[in-house]
Amino acid sequence: VIKTLINGEPENTISVLDRGLHYGDGIFETIKVTGGRLLFLEQHLQRLIAGSKRLGFPQPPVDRIVAEAKSLVDGTAEAVIKIVVTRGQGGRGYRLPEHTRLNRIIIRYPWVDYPERYYTAGVTMRLCNSRLSANPQLAGIKHLNRLEQIIARSEWQDPSIAEGLMLDQEENVVEGTMSNVFLYKGNRLTTPPLRNCGVAGIMRQRVLNIAQDLGISFDISEVKPKDLLSANEMFLTNSLIGIWPVKEFIHDGGVIGYQPGPITRQLTQALAQRELS
Amino acid sequence: VIKTLINGEPENTISVLDRGLHYGDGIFETIKVTGGRLLFLEQHLQRLIAGSKRLGFPQPPVDRIVAEAKSLVDGTAEAVIKIVVTRGQGGRGYRLPEHTRLNRIIIRYPWVDYPERYYTAGVTMRLCNSRLSANPQLAGIKHLNRLEQIIARSEWQDPSIAEGLMLDQEENVVEGTMSNVFLYKGNRLTTPPLRNCGVAGIMRQRVLNIAQDLGISFDISEVKPKDLLSANEMFLTNSLIGIWPVKEFIHDGGVIGYQPGPITRQLTQALAQRELS
Repeated sequence: VIKTLINGEPENTISVLDRGLHYGDGIFETIKVTGGRLLFLEQHLQRLIAGSKRLGFPQPPVDRIVAEAKSLVDGTAEAVIKIVVTRGQGGRGYRLPEHTRLNRIIIRYPWVDYPERYYTAGVTMRLCNSRLSANPQLAGIKHLNRLEQIIARSEWQDPSIAEGLMLDQEENVVEGTMSNVFLYKGNRLTTPPLRNCGVAGIMRQRVLNIAQDLGISFDISEVKPKDLLSANEMFLTNSLIGIWPVKEFIHDGGVIGYQPGPITRQLTQALAQRELS
Repeated sequence: VIKTLINGEPENTISVLDRGLHYGDGIFETIKVTGGRLLFLEQHLQRLIAGSKRLGFPQPPVDRIVAEAKSLVDGTAEAVIKIVVTRGQGGRGYRLPEHTRLNRIIIRYPWVDYPERYYTAGVTMRLCNSRLSANPQLAGIKHLNRLEQIIARSEWQDPSIAEGLMLDQEENVVEGTMSNVFLYKGNRLTTPPLRNCGVAGIMRQRVLNIAQDLGISFDISEVKPKDLLSANEMFLTNSLIGIWPVKEFIHDGGVIGYQPGPITRQLTQALAQRELS
């Protein structure tokens, strides 16, 4: 069952004049709840604050958001908490309201039980035809303008394909529709930069931190589709899934297979240990 | 006073699970009501249908939308009707719902009394720093992902500046934050193409049709900021404003002035005649 709090009240509808609806004028976070705890809460709040700044919002009431999110968790062991902050109600037109009163929406969704084999054998990923557009002002943050992801996700229905890989207009690899992507090749872990598009995932940063702690060489640098074809390992990350090895990549030229390799395994284990602690 | 109908009911709130709110997964139209009539209704509906197709929506119930819009007008002589169609309620995630039930929202706003001098003397326009990103799959339609316009509009507060001009990442002129742009130069009317970004305005098409009828040469072709500096006339269009001559353009290198010229006047007069008929 889905539960919601809007500005602290147990409502499930919002003003039809909300700028989140009219313009996607807002930001969101999707948080994994495990053992009744909001995982990586501090990092999610930091990104929420960064997104608010980028969009010129006043500072969102973080303490209230945390209290409300926790009250929605309310003893549930496993769940997904989504936090949406919009610029609130506004008049017609793009101009910012003179006095902004943010709306905050907290939603508790049931936990998604991803198949165990996604973690052990890995997932199938396909190359999307639609491209991400470049906008440095919107890159990195988790804003509510998500039509590009929706169009990309609508390219396939086959349930055996778990994710679609998106390129930018210059044919650089950026991310999955809902995840960040890593490849391991030549003793080096690489994930694409997110200067012009893409979401700076909490789990992406987590994995980079773990790689650093474990002494795995890594860089954030341009990735082309052909780099994926010669990768030794490939995996996807997001806050809910953690790490999914990629076992198959369906691209324009055919299908290439990967083995979930030692680096993916090492990172997955280190992540699990940190989740528990 | 603002009046609303949601799926035909006089509601003013919408489900917090609507995909319009979560992803900007929807389209909209903004229609001028004058003398109690919905102006260029057929063209607005056609664009709504085109946008629905582009986003993979089922066909929106156009007859109901028209009936509901008319019932909201309800004898009001001057008003603005906004129609929003979203992909409706959905689960978490970008994947399309298995069974889409569109939500339709009709809002009646009070008419905006634009200053008379905007039509006679013209308006001041500035060059925006933020750029429009390129995405051919979203170009032309009036979708709910409008953060680029919001960021651009937030660049200035000076009320004497009526509009901001936006370029794409290749420094081509595209449109204003809320209007299309035309220039007249060397006996030729030009407006930029909208293949990669921008909204295909109803009034833009209207003006092109009128130009054709009047025997004014025109083309849809690339415009660079420097082309504006040597233009004889420049004007802006949208469904609500009609035609605004540009009297001043504030750009990186300074300010350039224009006279509302004979072509702008001729088009404005022809448009007014057609509105009446």
